[in-house]
Amino acid sequence: MTSPVLPSHGRARPLGLAQVSLTGGFWGSRQAVNATATLAHCESWMERLGWLANFDRVADGTTGPDRPGWSFSDSEVYKLLEALAWESARTGDPGTEAAIKRLTARVARAQDPDGYLNTCFGHAGQPPRYSDLEMGHELYNTGHLLQAAVARLRTRGEDDLVRLARRAADHVCRVFGPDGLAGICGHPEIEVGLAEFGRALGEERYVEQARLFLDRRGRGTLRDIPLGRAYFQDDVPIREAPVWRGHAVRALYLAAAAVDVAVERGDDELLRAVERQWERSVARRTYLTGGMGSRHQDEGFGEDWELPPDRAYCETCAGVASIMVSWRLYLATGDVRYTDLIERTLYNVIATSPSADGRAFFYANPLHQRVPGRPAGPDEVSPRAEAGVRAAWFDVSCCPTNVARTLASLHAYLATSDDEGLQIHQYAPCEIRAELPGGRPAAVDVETDYPVSGAVRVRIAADAPAPWTLALRVPAWAAGAMLTEGGRTRPVEPGLARVRRAFRAGDEIVLHLPVEPRFTWPDPRIDALRGCVAVERGPEVLCLESRDLPDPGGFDSLVVDPRSVPRAVPDGARVRGRTLALADPSWPYPAGPAGAAEGGEWFDVPLRPYHEWARHGPSSMRIFLPVAPDGLEGTVAR
Amino acid sequence: MTSPVLPSHGRARPLGLAQVSLTGGFWGSRQAVNATATLAHCESWMERLGWLANFDRVADGTTGPDRPGWSFSDSEVYKLLEALAWESARTGDPGTEAAIKRLTARVARAQDPDGYLNTCFGHAGQPPRYSDLEMGHELYNTGHLLQAAVARLRTRGEDDLVRLARRAADHVCRVFGPDGLAGICGHPEIEVGLAEFGRALGEERYVEQARLFLDRRGRGTLRDIPLGRAYFQDDVPIREAPVWRGHAVRALYLAAAAVDVAVERGDDELLRAVERQWERSVARRTYLTGGMGSRHQDEGFGEDWELPPDRAYCETCAGVASIMVSWRLYLATGDVRYTDLIERTLYNVIATSPSADGRAFFYANPLHQRVPGRPAGPDEVSPRAEAGVRAAWFDVSCCPTNVARTLASLHAYLATSDDEGLQIHQYAPCEIRAELPGGRPAAVDVETDYPVSGAVRVRIAADAPAPWTLALRVPAWAAGAMLTEGGRTRPVEPGLARVRRAFRAGDEIVLHLPVEPRFTWPDPRIDALRGCVAVERGPEVLCLESRDLPDPGGFDSLVVDPRSVPRAVPDGARVRGRTLALADPSWPYPAGPAGAAEGGEWFDVPLRPYHEWARHGPSSMRIFLPVAPDGLEGTVAR
Repeated sequence: MTSPVLPSHGRARPLGLAQVSLTGGFWGSRQAVNATATLAHCESWMERLGWLANFDRVADGTTGPDRPGWSFSDSEVYKLLEALAWESARTGDPGTEAAIKRLTARVARAQDPDGYLNTCFGHAGQPPRYSDLEMGHELYNTGHLLQAAVARLRTRGEDDLVRLARRAADHVCRVFGPDGLAGICGHPEIEVGLAEFGRALGEERYVEQARLFLDRRGRGTLRDIPLGRAYFQDDVPIREAPVWRGHAVRALYLAAAAVDVAVERGDDELLRAVERQWERSVARRTYLTGGMGSRHQDEGFGEDWELPPDRAYCETCAGVASIMVSWRLYLATGDVRYTDLIERTLYNVIATSPSADGRAFFYANPLHQRVPGRPAGPDEVSPRAEAGVRAAWFDVSCCPTNVARTLASLHAYLATSDDEGLQIHQYAPCEIRAELPGGRPAAVDVETDYPVSGAVRVRIAADAPAPWTLALRVPAWAAGAMLTEGGRTRPVEPGLARVRRAFRAGDEIVLHLPVEPRFTWPDPRIDALRGCVAVERGPEVLCLESRDLPDPGGFDSLVVDPRSVPRAVPDGARVRGRTLALADPSWPYPAGPAGAAEGGEWFDVPLRPYHEWARHGPSSMRIFLPVAPDGLEGTVAR
Repeated sequence: MTSPVLPSHGRARPLGLAQVSLTGGFWGSRQAVNATATLAHCESWMERLGWLANFDRVADGTTGPDRPGWSFSDSEVYKLLEALAWESARTGDPGTEAAIKRLTARVARAQDPDGYLNTCFGHAGQPPRYSDLEMGHELYNTGHLLQAAVARLRTRGEDDLVRLARRAADHVCRVFGPDGLAGICGHPEIEVGLAEFGRALGEERYVEQARLFLDRRGRGTLRDIPLGRAYFQDDVPIREAPVWRGHAVRALYLAAAAVDVAVERGDDELLRAVERQWERSVARRTYLTGGMGSRHQDEGFGEDWELPPDRAYCETCAGVASIMVSWRLYLATGDVRYTDLIERTLYNVIATSPSADGRAFFYANPLHQRVPGRPAGPDEVSPRAEAGVRAAWFDVSCCPTNVARTLASLHAYLATSDDEGLQIHQYAPCEIRAELPGGRPAAVDVETDYPVSGAVRVRIAADAPAPWTLALRVPAWAAGAMLTEGGRTRPVEPGLARVRRAFRAGDEIVLHLPVEPRFTWPDPRIDALRGCVAVERGPEVLCLESRDLPDPGGFDSLVVDPRSVPRAVPDGARVRGRTLALADPSWPYPAGPAGAAEGGEWFDVPLRPYHEWARHGPSSMRIFLPVAPDGLEGTVAR
């Protein structure tokens, strides 16, 4: 079975990548751009910046203090290798296969005889191995190497990459094992890499080492830093932590590993702990987009209800990591709240980052951009995570390769199976050829232009002698969804809508999801969003761009009428609004409310999907729109 | 004349420190605590942490890479010396004088023969001189040394500190002069130090060097950094910049120096530029408290209208720097908007930082604290600027000594004179013994318990044969102020209320300022404050602390009725409010407004002055209070 995540047991089983294929649509086109543009784009940038040559320098003994890139640049090569491995298996493209061999060979030459593999530490002119566990990222890099090896192992079997990864994993187990150095890495990732590599190889030791790293964490194992040990989740043991905090990507990679270890060890206490953390973090520390990370300062979560739209960090990598956690939790529990969040994150974080041509990316994904970004040149490395424009590459460039490996394996997240049948979670044109226990075929073709329309047509592609259950996820937002089968149409509730039959080839089941644009209100405790409303369309969050306004200058003084009904248009929605004529004060804290200002004419405010913002040039942007005075009644409870 | 700032000309003249003395009250007591506790506290911490020994190590040739403290720790010693110098002149206390000599002697031993003086660069085991202009703070440190020397020179005349400062200034002029290294310091401060030292010594060269540093800036003279060159104001020349941006303390120290240079050079273009920057920054980038700096990431200004209360940085040092700028602008222009902002900043930033015993300080001064801080031990060095509790000392400890030098010289900012007479700007119990041109005495005693009450009694202390004008500042917030003189009471407008007479000793003028608590509303463009209202009392901003609530758990769901009238009570005010019974959502973005939630009983919400917050223990705190639904009408223009 080929899939990024294969727990030994759970409420649902992932389908193998060979059993699902995207045949077009919103995600199929993005997966194609990823294959034809992004993968080569990433390799060329890493060559150009010397991040690949860093491996050659270790092999050639020419390392020195002038090493380019951050201590984690090795991991970008490994994330690209992972993406290439999934992609090669998907299409069998020889160029992709050649790239894997090319990169693997260069990486392999840099491995020390004892299995240690890192281009930033432990060689001439470099700090000693493991001399900076807080910030050195050595084990973090290795974790991504193991994930790349998992992709290779499950799609092509043992090869050079798998073998060198095995030596690297053995080295880690020797150095950091029960009798070894009682350290952990400042950036979790080795844990999730070891757990999956252990599952793929049937190597208990690796899963056990992951557990050891997890249990060492949260006890002040790492040095304190000005940001505090919460930054790398070394403040509270993961079993005791009530919520995610600190650096978002760190917190989420750690949580993903915790689910893996909990499942493999039957450790329900640990699983419950991560579920509790997910619940509170999603209820109080997550953006409407599914984005996580409220602070630029530490790329981290804020306190409960601290969700500023303008300074939202919502790093693309945190979106990837959030999907990693929710997918593992779904497989373990079968609770669709997890696949609901995955859909939200896919459409509003993952889809937002890459440019249409797959050669530029958002790093941070704020919900409000005050000042249009400065267009970045195609050859410009952006030192800024917060440009307001997509950049070809970043000084800290974790996001592009993370998007690449996610899109290359996206079909792994569409559907699952259990003893009863098939569950479809994400709707895209695709073919699913699964096999249920006892060799029963569960084959369907999905046709849809979702999320533009809400009609999802599922056609049975093979006769099934015995009945099986087709379950279709009805998102939590989809009140009023309907299901048509055998000529009958019935309402279906959010959750899994089930159809159980002895299906015949050609049978059709159609799910109708209500994707008309709708208003969404923030909880009154989210101070930064008080008196505002957002518009969503199906799984897509919509936004306003200043360039789409008749008068872009009115962007800061626009208010909308929440009693009007958002109107669907092909490129998004229209909502009734007006701009206020606000005086320019010398002091912005007057003795009375600005109640007397004149409002302009009401007009149709154009909204587009958030994932499209800044595709038409730099712009001010906002998702949450201030509501006009009459509309304010009721925005806070009476 | 002894005063921190003595321009060669301007619309108003500062009074000498010898001409004004605080005799008690709000500021007199704080100045006393500063003298008896804070100064010794600062010296003992710098001794304990080795920041003073750093000077001995340079003198003894025992420097090395193990130097404790940041590159700017020297400046803390200099800021303490400046504070001690003002304090020694104020009281003539021999212990204070002894401390100055003690510290001066240790500093003097560390000066290189060519005048270079720095404990972090240029000696054995250290990076070379001026090898990191962006972050090395060498010239920044020297700037503070010069300000300390100014204090000494103007209060005691030339002494060892003045002589070594002169050598240091000459060194800077040699190295960075017109024919020298065309560099600038990443942290402005040398400019304001050189300008004032030049004025104090009548050394044109120093003022000219300050001008040179100013004009070199804003042209990409410094290396770019991930935060961008705006961080240290090297992005746009100061004459062209429309607004303050980047690191707030850097921006404001630079602006203060620009006013000095503009005044000394009669450079009206430069003066207008700083006035423009002040206007827009105060109108769009300043907090109700007068605090400046919206972002933790770079301790910097945000974009226009970006003023989050919870993540407000509002560094104490930025408050000090803001007063430096506004005071210089007032002296140059005589516009009371500058002294208005000084009052706001004094009561709500400067007074907020130190603990009652003068041995703990706030570094950041947010307007909303979500989670109570962890009490810091008296011996604990806080690595965090954002603790929510006052800390005895900080890893980056710029604020305590900045507060110390400000409080030690606070009486310099109370009043000014011009050819017509005396202007009183800040109201505190004090004696003013000024002399107008032609030797005319202008002597008054001020009695008041302002800001607790609004009655300010000014008693003439000496007969004046010829008439002169007593001008009293009426703050912009003081609508309805009255003035009583010669038995008659008349309304006075915000601005300067003038009384011109041939005063006789014993004459009394009484200003009545309306200090009843009042609602203050945010501009609708400040997104983070939408739907909220604050309460002010005279110059004090009030706040709510969770520990003062009957049910602290209701802090996050409290709303107030803005149509009620805030009621004055001795310790602050009471305003009508209630807590909402809000459901705990699994997802905080519902399809409808939270309009149905039950509200609890209305009760009197206790508010206290913001400068008192966290004095009674850690607490959640907020200045801007969400308004109840009915009250929301009018908070955004209809």
